Amino acid sequence: MPGSTLGELFRVTNFGESHGPAIGCVIDGCTPGLALSEADIQPELDRRRPGTSRHVTQRNEADAVEILSGVYEGRTTGTPIALLIRNTDQRSKDYGNLLDTFRPGHADYTYWRKFGHRDPRGGGRSSARLTAPTVAAGAVAKKWLKERHGVSFAGWMSQLGEIAIPFVDEAEIPNNPFFAPNAAVVPQLEAYMDALRKAGDSCGARIEVRARGVPAGLGEPLYDRLDADIAYAMMGLNAVKGVEIGAGFGCVTQRGSEHGDELTPEGFASNHAGGVLGGISTGQDLVVSIAIKPTSSIRTPRRSVDRAGAPTTVETHGRHDPCVGIRATPIAEALLALVVMDHVLRQRAQNADVSLPVPPIPGG
Amino acid sequence: MPGSTLGELFRVTNFGESHGPAIGCVIDGCTPGLALSEADIQPELDRRRPGTSRHVTQRNEADAVEILSGVYEGRTTGTPIALLIRNTDQRSKDYGNLLDTFRPGHADYTYWRKFGHRDPRGGGRSSARLTAPTVAAGAVAKKWLKERHGVSFAGWMSQLGEIAIPFVDEAEIPNNPFFAPNAAVVPQLEAYMDALRKAGDSCGARIEVRARGVPAGLGEPLYDRLDADIAYAMMGLNAVKGVEIGAGFGCVTQRGSEHGDELTPEGFASNHAGGVLGGISTGQDLVVSIAIKPTSSIRTPRRSVDRAGAPTTVETHGRHDPCVGIRATPIAEALLALVVMDHVLRQRAQNADVSLPVPPIPGG
Amino acid sequence: MPGSTLGELFRVTNFGESHGPAIGCVIDGCTPGLALSEADIQPELDRRRPGTSRHVTQRNEADAVEILSGVYEGRTTGTPIALLIRNTDQRSKDYGNLLDTFRPGHADYTYWRKFGHRDPRGGGRSSARLTAPTVAAGAVAKKWLKERHGVSFAGWMSQLGEIAIPFVDEAEIPNNPFFAPNAAVVPQLEAYMDALRKAGDSCGARIEVRARGVPAGLGEPLYDRLDADIAYAMMGLNAVKGVEIGAGFGCVTQRGSEHGDELTPEGFASNHAGGVLGGISTGQDLVVSIAIKPTSSIRTPRRSVDRAGAPTTVETHGRHDPCVGIRATPIAEALLALVVMDHVLRQRAQNADVSLPVPPIPGG
Amino acid sequence: MPGSTLGELFRVTNFGESHGPAIGCVIDGCTPGLALSEADIQPELDRRRPGTSRHVTQRNEADAVEILSGVYEGRTTGTPIALLIRNTDQRSKDYGNLLDTFRPGHADYTYWRKFGHRDPRGGGRSSARLTAPTVAAGAVAKKWLKERHGVSFAGWMSQLGEIAIPFVDEAEIPNNPFFAPNAAVVPQLEAYMDALRKAGDSCGARIEVRARGVPAGLGEPLYDRLDADIAYAMMGLNAVKGVEIGAGFGCVTQRGSEHGDELTPEGFASNHAGGVLGGISTGQDLVVSIAIKPTSSIRTPRRSVDRAGAPTTVETHGRHDPCVGIRATPIAEALLALVVMDHVLRQRAQNADVSLPVPPIPGG
Repeated sequence: MPGSTLGELFRVTNFGESHGPAIGCVIDGCTPGLALSEADIQPELDRRRPGTSRHVTQRNEADAVEILSGVYEGRTTGTPIALLIRNTDQRSKDYGNLLDTFRPGHADYTYWRKFGHRDPRGGGRSSARLTAPTVAAGAVAKKWLKERHGVSFAGWMSQLGEIAIPFVDEAEIPNNPFFAPNAAVVPQLEAYMDALRKAGDSCGARIEVRARGVPAGLGEPLYDRLDADIAYAMMGLNAVKGVEIGAGFGCVTQRGSEHGDELTPEGFASNHAGGVLGGISTGQDLVVSIAIKPTSSIRTPRRSVDRAGAPTTVETHGRHDPCVGIRATPIAEALLALVVMDHVLRQRAQNADVSLPVPPIPGG
Repeated sequence: MPGSTLGELFRVTNFGESHGPAIGCVIDGCTPGLALSEADIQPELDRRRPGTSRHVTQRNEADAVEILSGVYEGRTTGTPIALLIRNTDQRSKDYGNLLDTFRPGHADYTYWRKFGHRDPRGGGRSSARLTAPTVAAGAVAKKWLKERHGVSFAGWMSQLGEIAIPFVDEAEIPNNPFFAPNAAVVPQLEAYMDALRKAGDSCGARIEVRARGVPAGLGEPLYDRLDADIAYAMMGLNAVKGVEIGAGFGCVTQRGSEHGDELTPEGFASNHAGGVLGGISTGQDLVVSIAIKPTSSIRTPRRSVDRAGAPTTVETHGRHDPCVGIRATPIAEALLALVVMDHVLRQRAQNADVSLPVPPIPGG
Repeated sequence: MPGSTLGELFRVTNFGESHGPAIGCVIDGCTPGLALSEADIQPELDRRRPGTSRHVTQRNEADAVEILSGVYEGRTTGTPIALLIRNTDQRSKDYGNLLDTFRPGHADYTYWRKFGHRDPRGGGRSSARLTAPTVAAGAVAKKWLKERHGVSFAGWMSQLGEIAIPFVDEAEIPNNPFFAPNAAVVPQLEAYMDALRKAGDSCGARIEVRARGVPAGLGEPLYDRLDADIAYAMMGLNAVKGVEIGAGFGCVTQRGSEHGDELTPEGFASNHAGGVLGGISTGQDLVVSIAIKPTSSIRTPRRSVDRAGAPTTVETHGRHDPCVGIRATPIAEALLALVVMDHVLRQRAQNADVSLPVPPIPGG
Repeated sequence: MPGSTLGELFRVTNFGESHGPAIGCVIDGCTPGLALSEADIQPELDRRRPGTSRHVTQRNEADAVEILSGVYEGRTTGTPIALLIRNTDQRSKDYGNLLDTFRPGHADYTYWRKFGHRDPRGGGRSSARLTAPTVAAGAVAKKWLKERHGVSFAGWMSQLGEIAIPFVDEAEIPNNPFFAPNAAVVPQLEAYMDALRKAGDSCGARIEVRARGVPAGLGEPLYDRLDADIAYAMMGLNAVKGVEIGAGFGCVTQRGSEHGDELTPEGFASNHAGGVLGGISTGQDLVVSIAIKPTSSIRTPRRSVDRAGAPTTVETHGRHDPCVGIRATPIAEALLALVVMDHVLRQRAQNADVSLPVPPIPGG
């Protein structure tokens, strides 16, 4: 099965290349009756948009989304929703000197081995631009989940390069370009980024994303466990190299007496599980953490080869991010929303007849 | 879509509960003409089997696999291969005192909220026993990949609780119950485990798994990237809470000038990418690392509630692992093999006509 | 995607070959809480079973089904239900003289071109024996649909060779081996069959199957229309060469003024649509008709070639049906039940929030 | 799984409503390297286009297709191909008087019961307009199949209402608006249609479609048999109520000695099988026949009810086809091409290693 589709019941099929005519997606399976317009989607795209701060790629794409189908008189019809974003700012020439070589850390080499050709236009389909349709679809999922189930999503940066960012105040997240929940550390982050940009180098980042109010019971015992599908979605995001749920790799050194979250009448006593047990949601916060690798397009010269295998050097100019993680937060939120939405529909498909008492403990 | 199936073209559908009559799987889409018998599968199951050392659950399951279909005169027919493993040692009474409570860290609570009932028999479908069919299917994939493409798989433990296990000698892996690539550290690991068992507690582990000889070009640009599907498979393994590819979370503090693997005529200069770029295999080793949480069935009393939410205490007796990670290695290998197999078939479905020169550099 | 699976949410994966160790299926996605035991399935298998009359293949297969998983204390758990049927009567030698030739009308030639080998054992996977797991799975779907939604299924033969069978009395269907809703015609049918058997030839049949009480709203606008999925299931049944919904091919000569079913306060005035409009169920009876070709295993000699293309003659002996359509009725019912079940779950997945007044007209 | 997608490996996701902003599709899994431009697709859309004769709906839609992605420098990249068709001529007011009633034979009632709302704009998603994206996608499949495998597709009308159309000359098909392979009968067909239009009524039609040069071995034993998938695709076409393969319902009265196609060194002696045996292609022509019901939008008044169930009358004005079958031929060809394309990729995914001698007989 070709892999441009995410989800089983809330299915998002993504299309487009960075410098082609347009990018977009088709959402199939959206519930009908949801109030929806471009105004519900555009703000999420704007959060992600390039050019919003000096720390991210200076590319002037308005990323204006257009709804082509699936909405009538302001409400979803239940038929597929096609979302279109035209590409307007395509400075192909930035990549002109790369036509016959492979940029280290980029997908140039692998796309060539897979498809037999090289699309040098800004990364083509490998470009992070293709996260825009994901965010657009995520906006739809977020809206329905919020209205129908009271689920909310939040994401933030918890580490930039070596700088740990303590979680201080969620309200700070939208106030700085880093999505950092901490106003005090922002000047340090900015100085760090400026230094990197001058040096022509890049750094990685750690992003956390949380879903609150998720119903218990989402996810399949195996293989389509909720955390498995979350890992799939997150690891599928450009530049992600690691995914954790709850305590994540911290589990390795924990004891069972410490890790297992006890249940009390007041609720779960902790959340090392990150909201998932046995692959199924507990009703607690879903807590996900991802590792984003440093940008591969840097201005320091790097060794490479050409198609014949002869050695050469590659140096990137033009528009580049010293840290692609800066923009990842809204995308990670969107991905989490898409997975949760999909599993809400899957759960009610199979288990709508299950009749349970009110959860015996809060937040479960 | 119900989620008991892994893979798109080499599809494995898993069935069974820990104490039901039988467990097994159906493999659909296996290539025809592969020489196959139970003797090709049983050794992999034996690697995973309980009771092979004092450090793992003492349960006497022979895990004898039977091929019910899909093989004729010793070769696969291309029709579905059903693999059956009868359950023989089912000491249900070990769980008798847990009928109305929820063991912290286990899936009891979540299964109840999902399906509306509680199957107290040894974890039911949430039991790690259900990894046996996965390993059986993985054996088939491993065989074909080895014979047809020269791909090999290896896994090992890289950390047990706080004890880091340096990679010294791959040949040592089968010589100890930990799958540790290091003979010298084994006594320390054993002492550690004995202490834990006495204390009635448990610890986590870190497992690494590697695929070598993987062709370049496997994986889709998005969403079904090779690393996304690997993360899905690994996070779907019982007790896994984190997945890394290549440098993983180590990326966060790396620089782009350090992380991006340069290409030289002799091959890639490094492998921080872990064998995947842009979601597609480079031809280098696939390198995956997973975090396994400490066992939830421990003998120290833990707080919980009953179905009405009243407080209670839970204490597990009977057969338990102080570290489920001890047995995870062959399962992680199987999962990686299943994902690679699936993507080999997917790649040739779409791109069989692509004609490329020999890879310009070795291992790519 | 390998194709041994039917359904998206109530998924049935079929395995086995006619003369292999066993046949069976795995049902994934069954709703939990349904009372289920072998006793709910066996009667449906018995309706289909060979050896129940002189008009069908004399093969002594008890077709005893065993539930291997997915049921606990007499109720479905929501986890996969594996159903197993061991093959006991495998008279392979009946086919011994066919090893290197291709029987006209059989799948011998096509399996060889597809898989590169020939499984001469009673048709292998192409055998109608593989309809047994389908019937077993259909029994589960029928039960749930009946208990939960009041849906009932009925099938009958409407034509045998040239003999039209008028629908006279539904209660007669179980009283004769033809599933004919007409006692008076049975002697004629039996004489017809006896004559065919003596002549060593075979005839076709037309089977009708009806679902009553189906909720309106099942099916997707396109492409997974309810009638499309029904056609897929029916045409996928061995020996079926035609499928009709409602008026079927009779539509060609109808006028729109005659075909379109008018709506009145008492209900739909007719049902030329066969219960499906725009791919979606109306609430009326689903009416499906299928054409079954004459058996290809006949005792009159037929021309064929061997693998090298040299001419030869083929003559079948042993156990054969003069009309495979005799046994098709319970299978067609099962297939219709599986499609309806799947679409009930799909409909509630997406549209569970849709709130409508009671249908404005009866039977809609 | 929401059902707007056709195919497993050559996947076409269709979106749009008749009077929404645009319609289109996304093709995922297309092989790379295929020369492709709008000029390869537009002619197929033109064959289907309304307004090309007085016998079809007079709606001025240019149906100009635009390729939004998946093509670079004139060749497919292997990434998803999005095809867009803007709606330009949307005379909504034609349907204004139908807002609260349900047109007999249309999907109005069923869409309301399914989605909980009524989209009165020209049928919305139920409109035959949504066959345009299918035809566009089919053009891509046809091109690759022709270039890579020498497969060709042809379709024609074999019956209009009561008028049988003997197959006389394939070259005549493009010369008349009926796609009739027979020049002599055309005046009779035109007179028949003119009479129907004056009467405000409609008739059905029978369409045949053939694929030639199809490789043997396509299709799965069960359930995804080639003929099953063909039936699914065809029955999923608006207004289709019956599908036949080969002899179809004619099988019912055939004898096995007559129906089974013998094999000779010169090739198969007949093709009652229609090119499919045991669900797998034989290499012979695929022969499919479909029954198209008479148009439901007619000018004779018809009884209906409103949402409260009170009786009312419905009469349609504006643009209508006296026979929607007139335009079905290119759509049926497209659907057949899509199914064949999908199965070619599926076959090579699983069985690319199968090595067979040249087919022992021609056309096999």
